[in-house]
Amino acid sequence: MLHARRVAIIGASERNPFAAPVLGNLERIGFTGEIVLVNPRGEPINGRPVLRSAAELDAGIDAAFVCVPQAMVLDTVEEAAAAGVTGFVIVASGFAEVGGEGAVQQERLREIISRHGLTLLGPNSLGFVNYVDRISLSVIGNCGPSGSIGIASVSGSVGSYLEKALVSQGLGISHLVLTGNEAGLTVADAIDFLVDDPATLSIAVFLETVYDPRRFAAAAERALAAAKPIVVIKAGASDGTARLVAAHTGALVGDDRVFDAVAAELGISRVDCYEDMIATAALLSAVGPTDRPGVAALTISGGSGEILSDLAHAAGVSFPPFSAPVRQQLDASVSAFGQSHNPLDVTGAGLRDPELWERCLRAIAADETIGLTLCLWDPPAAANQGWMGQTLAAITRGYSAYSAIPPLVQAVAEPVTEYGKEAMRVAGIPGAIGGLKPAINALSRLHAWSARLRDKRPVSLFAEPVQSSLPRPRHERALLDALSAHGAPVVPGIVARDADAAVAAAERFGYPVALKILVPELAHKTEIGGVRLKLGNAAELRQAFGELMAIQVAGEIEGVVVSPMRAIDAELLVAVSYDPTWGAMLTLGIGGIWVEAFDDTQLLPLPANAAQIEKALRSLRAAPLLTGGRGRPAMDLGGIVLAIEKIVGAALAFGPELTLLEINPLAISPAGVEVLDALALWRES
Amino acid sequence: MLHARRVAIIGASERNPFAAPVLGNLERIGFTGEIVLVNPRGEPINGRPVLRSAAELDAGIDAAFVCVPQAMVLDTVEEAAAAGVTGFVIVASGFAEVGGEGAVQQERLREIISRHGLTLLGPNSLGFVNYVDRISLSVIGNCGPSGSIGIASVSGSVGSYLEKALVSQGLGISHLVLTGNEAGLTVADAIDFLVDDPATLSIAVFLETVYDPRRFAAAAERALAAAKPIVVIKAGASDGTARLVAAHTGALVGDDRVFDAVAAELGISRVDCYEDMIATAALLSAVGPTDRPGVAALTISGGSGEILSDLAHAAGVSFPPFSAPVRQQLDASVSAFGQSHNPLDVTGAGLRDPELWERCLRAIAADETIGLTLCLWDPPAAANQGWMGQTLAAITRGYSAYSAIPPLVQAVAEPVTEYGKEAMRVAGIPGAIGGLKPAINALSRLHAWSARLRDKRPVSLFAEPVQSSLPRPRHERALLDALSAHGAPVVPGIVARDADAAVAAAERFGYPVALKILVPELAHKTEIGGVRLKLGNAAELRQAFGELMAIQVAGEIEGVVVSPMRAIDAELLVAVSYDPTWGAMLTLGIGGIWVEAFDDTQLLPLPANAAQIEKALRSLRAAPLLTGGRGRPAMDLGGIVLAIEKIVGAALAFGPELTLLEINPLAISPAGVEVLDALALWRES
Repeated sequence: MLHARRVAIIGASERNPFAAPVLGNLERIGFTGEIVLVNPRGEPINGRPVLRSAAELDAGIDAAFVCVPQAMVLDTVEEAAAAGVTGFVIVASGFAEVGGEGAVQQERLREIISRHGLTLLGPNSLGFVNYVDRISLSVIGNCGPSGSIGIASVSGSVGSYLEKALVSQGLGISHLVLTGNEAGLTVADAIDFLVDDPATLSIAVFLETVYDPRRFAAAAERALAAAKPIVVIKAGASDGTARLVAAHTGALVGDDRVFDAVAAELGISRVDCYEDMIATAALLSAVGPTDRPGVAALTISGGSGEILSDLAHAAGVSFPPFSAPVRQQLDASVSAFGQSHNPLDVTGAGLRDPELWERCLRAIAADETIGLTLCLWDPPAAANQGWMGQTLAAITRGYSAYSAIPPLVQAVAEPVTEYGKEAMRVAGIPGAIGGLKPAINALSRLHAWSARLRDKRPVSLFAEPVQSSLPRPRHERALLDALSAHGAPVVPGIVARDADAAVAAAERFGYPVALKILVPELAHKTEIGGVRLKLGNAAELRQAFGELMAIQVAGEIEGVVVSPMRAIDAELLVAVSYDPTWGAMLTLGIGGIWVEAFDDTQLLPLPANAAQIEKALRSLRAAPLLTGGRGRPAMDLGGIVLAIEKIVGAALAFGPELTLLEINPLAISPAGVEVLDALALWRES
Repeated sequence: MLHARRVAIIGASERNPFAAPVLGNLERIGFTGEIVLVNPRGEPINGRPVLRSAAELDAGIDAAFVCVPQAMVLDTVEEAAAAGVTGFVIVASGFAEVGGEGAVQQERLREIISRHGLTLLGPNSLGFVNYVDRISLSVIGNCGPSGSIGIASVSGSVGSYLEKALVSQGLGISHLVLTGNEAGLTVADAIDFLVDDPATLSIAVFLETVYDPRRFAAAAERALAAAKPIVVIKAGASDGTARLVAAHTGALVGDDRVFDAVAAELGISRVDCYEDMIATAALLSAVGPTDRPGVAALTISGGSGEILSDLAHAAGVSFPPFSAPVRQQLDASVSAFGQSHNPLDVTGAGLRDPELWERCLRAIAADETIGLTLCLWDPPAAANQGWMGQTLAAITRGYSAYSAIPPLVQAVAEPVTEYGKEAMRVAGIPGAIGGLKPAINALSRLHAWSARLRDKRPVSLFAEPVQSSLPRPRHERALLDALSAHGAPVVPGIVARDADAAVAAAERFGYPVALKILVPELAHKTEIGGVRLKLGNAAELRQAFGELMAIQVAGEIEGVVVSPMRAIDAELLVAVSYDPTWGAMLTLGIGGIWVEAFDDTQLLPLPANAAQIEKALRSLRAAPLLTGGRGRPAMDLGGIVLAIEKIVGAALAFGPELTLLEINPLAISPAGVEVLDALALWRES
């Protein structure tokens, strides 16, 4: 459909608010195939003949833009499909996004599509534009020249803004695919198409809900294998937004952090605004993955260099000092006023002497810590800025010492004029990034994406819980025993049903001991005073036993669990949960009150190997508690990772009925690692 | 000088790279005063007569732009000053920013200025533009119409970028003052001027080092009193930048976090990029302080509304749900498709029916949680977008229910055309904010600034250490005793010089006790094993005493300090230090290893009152450790604040020789608050 040579507009009339722009765009973009118009009145439009009915269409129509009223959509599609039309864009709204009868209609539409084996974009879609082959079947689109960035957006207005912003930076588009309600093609399908499209070098995506996570993941994995960057804005970071999305396309948004973790696993660059999306898509596709994290920049505005440097510092992007020999060369090139710091202020000399840019770029290319050099420079606006064009040529020559030419960076975003676009094209410069902050944010994504590519690890998602015959543990101690049976290190515990048994157990462990009340299904023992710690002798133990057994709770108190007290150096929270879209997830965090105060957690999609788990632990802000230093002992990180792997294994072995297994704490001391407390939640059977 | 009616250009010639643009700008801006040119050759320029020497000038010249070569600057200024000229702009570089002889020259220039009582902008300054009175004595400047934003920038290029970006958003400038090396006027002087300037409604500042902190603070306090917002980009957030700044204007940058704390105290909005600066200056000056934190937005792009909502969530800006009656009204106004969430998607209906904007704005005005409603809408580009102009008029009518009209928000920044500027002027709309993220960042600054204004507390800075006759404590215990004498709660401790005395002390406190080695000037006792904890009886104590006294250290071991062991629920770090620019600072943070792992500290300029200290404690991420909840007891916050006040008082009482007093930890339990450990550093005497 996206390569259609014969297209139809069904519902075409001069007063239809969609038909006229669609037809206009088809003409403006220079579509050379056949256009067939359909309208019951059959009067010619713009001199073009008009068919009276979709039934008069034929099997050679690759794509039909349907702009009939909502109530007529289903019949129209049936009619056209019967005539042999295979591809449809449906612009009408009033389907699943309004719920109720609209959702029923969308389900019926889906059934029609499926029955006839049709391709559908929509409903509630503004269509698509294929800039490469000059095909526009869309209400929007600027019909400009083609370029290398493919856009897949669930929202037409977002697609339109992205297109406008890309074009204004001198960046071109290969395809614009607006998926709307996604009753047929989804954003995942569009990504899949763009991965294979030779004109597309990077893929910009706006999405709300991922309906087909496995297809999405597969497309992203193929993009990763092809080193074709995907940049995503996904709405739904806030609860408020989740409500909005429900209104906007009738979708429910999953846990936002889960998508962050999935995006990291898939090598997707997630951004949160249009400017970062454009900068990231432009930078990653222009320069490709890089092994060296160091970045350099040249500017004639020392102040802008300082702002860039501050932004880089905040984003963790490194502008390292130049190596001594490079600095020496730069000092000789740049006047004595511009001392050779990075970012490098080429001073007003850079205005008078375009060649200075070439000399500096060549000098910096020899610096082994620098992987990429950015030029803060505006493309010329018009012919009277010819000297700025000379600077572009000098910059391009300077970049011949590099593997690729990055976009220019504009200190303040300004639309690039047609003259400027042509000047960049001649110089081989792939557009401009508008603004210092988008440039820094794009650099930060470049390094994350490059690291994911270097990793070469296949995508690991959708861990399957084992179909288990394991009984559901009746209470926490049974759960702990089950964990232990699966190889996880668990604090020993003896169930005692009377005080004498408790004392015997305590003597086996040695005092002090801890007592926990044993009640099946009771989640929060501490809140009701059901836990006693540091009991130092038999008398204390007996008194505590008596008090625990006397607590009023819903459910029978079956006894107490006696465990030895442990010296704890650090506490971890380890949890396995299931996201409805992305499946099993592992949460790691520092335990105790600190979890909530500092919100210091890492999320990993499962399955995850030992190296991933260790990396996640090391990414906690509290990692120094585990890795030692400053007078603190280092913990047995290998032992911690192994314990986490065993906990994950046990969680999966409990089968698909388990919804959450939470260990808090996994107690850690130089002596070892032990699960002290565990909680399991189960699907209602 | 900034209101000059007679100006001179000294060094004017057709090949001087500065003189031609300065003269051109004077003419373009419509300067109606007298222009006098000076050049030794004395040939007319552009038909204007030229004086041969600065000595021929007269006392009526309010401002001279000096563009002679660096080596001639000092003689030229002397000559012109002798002739009676009182104001100078010096563009030449090669002064303090290059160090060495340049710095000496700048010192001599400063001496000349001071001797003659002259006003100086520069050296290394690109000049100033007074848009209101149509005076430009600057190499840069677009000479467009005047507006309400004043710019003070140490850097000419940054000032130029700011001007360009402001003008492109349809925002006007009152004054542009470029201070360069600040041998005469500083950024603080420029702010002071702009506070009094009636045309200026907000002040945008780029600075590196603040040379005159008291003058800066006084100007900022006057701006606060006038509710005139100041928005600052201050370079130097990163070490790398600190180096750059040294190169750029010969300044050293102070601790960046100190400036953050000072900016908060002064009600200054600190931002980190051009886009946020423009958005913040435009929003704050347009709407003024607001008491209601809730924000609403209208958009025809549901997707952009979602992105805005996510950005707001991340920045802590609240888009609350509409109240039930407002929602009902909105549901009646907007079609059933756009359910009335906030941000409100007015859908395509907003394109067809401009009045919808007015109705929605009026409905939302009745919502008591909403203080401000933003419209995501582009100004019309040209006359053929007349319907967009109708929307502007409808928006303006809708805003009549509000106290002020905010700028429009463009989803994607685009320069506003002259047609669009005129349309906004007619509609009374004060320009546009370019981009969703700058809009959200400006909202976040609006709320912080409004809160500082509501606070009404006078600015509190530059606490003076008392000229003290207190002896410098010889060792930590003496320091603790001095703190105690100043009213701070300190753990008791008895100095023991032999084991028997130690045992006697321990028996007085009761076991267990802690022992600390007592060596004057020894900062890090723990690292050398000089601290023993939890000694449970006399035998353990004697053994520990013997081991401590046998430690090999530089300096005489004078004994040990015996203290009781304390049960600690939370540890705070409390430190008083002196910033070379901003004076005494109080640092509060969670103590122990957590300080480093989580970097959870708050900085307050001193003096600070109890309410400020409590607010800082409550702003720690670890505040729940102090305020209780989730089964944890609440601590005595009043007692903690009082202890901190006493510690601050003691630090100031030690006099100006003290450079740092650090308490770590201030131990906190439900039973009370105690200083357990203290460290003082002193200026070398």
